[in-house]
Amino acid sequence: MTPFLSPLGPSALRDAGIPAPWSFGMADRVRFGEIDALNHVNNVAYLRWYETLRVNYLNEYGIYTLAGENPKFVVKSVGLDYKAEVKRDTSYINVTRTVSMRNTSWRMEYATFVDGKITTTGDCVAVLLNQDNTKRSLPDALRQTFVTRDGAEQL
Amino acid sequence: MTPFLSPLGPSALRDAGIPAPWSFGMADRVRFGEIDALNHVNNVAYLRWYETLRVNYLNEYGIYTLAGENPKFVVKSVGLDYKAEVKRDTSYINVTRTVSMRNTSWRMEYATFVDGKITTTGDCVAVLLNQDNTKRSLPDALRQTFVTRDGAEQL
Amino acid sequence: MTPFLSPLGPSALRDAGIPAPWSFGMADRVRFGEIDALNHVNNVAYLRWYETLRVNYLNEYGIYTLAGENPKFVVKSVGLDYKAEVKRDTSYINVTRTVSMRNTSWRMEYATFVDGKITTTGDCVAVLLNQDNTKRSLPDALRQTFVTRDGAEQL
Amino acid sequence: MTPFLSPLGPSALRDAGIPAPWSFGMADRVRFGEIDALNHVNNVAYLRWYETLRVNYLNEYGIYTLAGENPKFVVKSVGLDYKAEVKRDTSYINVTRTVSMRNTSWRMEYATFVDGKITTTGDCVAVLLNQDNTKRSLPDALRQTFVTRDGAEQL
Repeated sequence: MTPFLSPLGPSALRDAGIPAPWSFGMADRVRFGEIDALNHVNNVAYLRWYETLRVNYLNEYGIYTLAGENPKFVVKSVGLDYKAEVKRDTSYINVTRTVSMRNTSWRMEYATFVDGKITTTGDCVAVLLNQDNTKRSLPDALRQTFVTRDGAEQL
Repeated sequence: MTPFLSPLGPSALRDAGIPAPWSFGMADRVRFGEIDALNHVNNVAYLRWYETLRVNYLNEYGIYTLAGENPKFVVKSVGLDYKAEVKRDTSYINVTRTVSMRNTSWRMEYATFVDGKITTTGDCVAVLLNQDNTKRSLPDALRQTFVTRDGAEQL
Repeated sequence: MTPFLSPLGPSALRDAGIPAPWSFGMADRVRFGEIDALNHVNNVAYLRWYETLRVNYLNEYGIYTLAGENPKFVVKSVGLDYKAEVKRDTSYINVTRTVSMRNTSWRMEYATFVDGKITTTGDCVAVLLNQDNTKRSLPDALRQTFVTRDGAEQL
Repeated sequence: MTPFLSPLGPSALRDAGIPAPWSFGMADRVRFGEIDALNHVNNVAYLRWYETLRVNYLNEYGIYTLAGENPKFVVKSVGLDYKAEVKRDTSYINVTRTVSMRNTSWRMEYATFVDGKITTTGDCVAVLLNQDNTKRSLPDALRQTFVTRDGAEQL
């Protein structure tokens, strides 16, 4: 088996020094193309990282299946808070969890850890749509997954 | 003269149907590489657009010069709110203005207009640093520029 | 009318000091996000530029229409030759033309001009496919467009 | 230890079904942001992949150290040949090796393997420079590394 980049669950995250309640993560190393003229990871790169993380998370939790037939997921809003710069070749772990749900949307939080310290945090609100862009209520089994695995709160 | 992509000031923005107090903009057309698998402009592309817009704005307002010797500008936080999707080849105008200032930082707002309607909004807090990453107070002439041109408020 | 980034035809290119037989171009300015850790335009950015240029060219020449029902265009190969680095905020003009055609494919050449000098050249072979990825012969009207506008050679 | 994405040497590559003389590789999975409007990996993404691969390769082979004081590496030319499209979430292995050297430059070849089959190949010529952009001859120890590890030919 080739060592593909694997998602990290709660116990792997704890082993890496990342505290509860973070429940899902991906480790990687900063790439040359993510560095900008200021010689640190460009602001925009984090949003790309968190997109990749979110898609991996949704895949791994089975959300694409639990969402019913032909679901469409869109991002309603995102926020990023940059606390410390990250340099070339640095190893990091990006983590996420779903913190709350409404009728058709849910809120995820993100963080980037370098050597056990948070360098950037973020959040997003994602919405479940039908293919015609009308909203779809989150199915119960999908809600239950967010509650059981992440301790998400129903608002 | 070749028709380079020129910044739009207040009167050009009003001509294009964009209301006050938006004071600076750039028009462009959606590029193939900005479209994702959902056939609309990818969420991340907006953050890249607003980065380009912010750098053009800072250049045009002379902020790099007004900031004193060897300034360093970093983004402290960003937020994006996606209101409507934008499709391939669509023409748009991205606008920005500085709304408020603190001692070493200032807050900018962004919007994307398509056919006179806002499809996405955003904001960021930028910080002025010295090259050693210590904070630097915004010089008076820099503050005055934000006040005069954008009506920015001192907090 | 807002000053969108407009394609440049032969006479606009000649006015800008770009020699025949270049027949189509787009002017722009280097963006912050295109600069890498070496403080010049990143190698990869050129391929993105030429993709944008190619799509604009195909649109402007009416190739998407001339290609028949539901065409699919894919790139078979690309090459890039970097002759001089380009720095932040530099104004440039990217140009292209179709130089030759085969049964189902055609070859385009690219160049980036800065102050009348070429800094990078490139080329690509593009292929016309049906939606099921089988090849489709280039329709006569499409060939004629490449011959008339660009002097393309039938191989 | 967290499972960072590790480089693959010759024996790991052979285990993954990748034949000699490929000597260095990185496995990964296609990311959402690499998919374009045609629902396959965008042409440009491969050039980004090979950039990341090249930097990892140079790091791992110690080339940045063997190149002498303050070396500067630039890419002189690249080529890409797309043989088959790659879809979302696909696992792949990118491989590279140095095939030949001249006085101040060397030539690398790239390939992307999916399920043991090549989907894209590429190559690049890289040049060793001093910080003032004058050329620097490849030091003997650097040449020896390319010969010993990759069987590179001196031209």
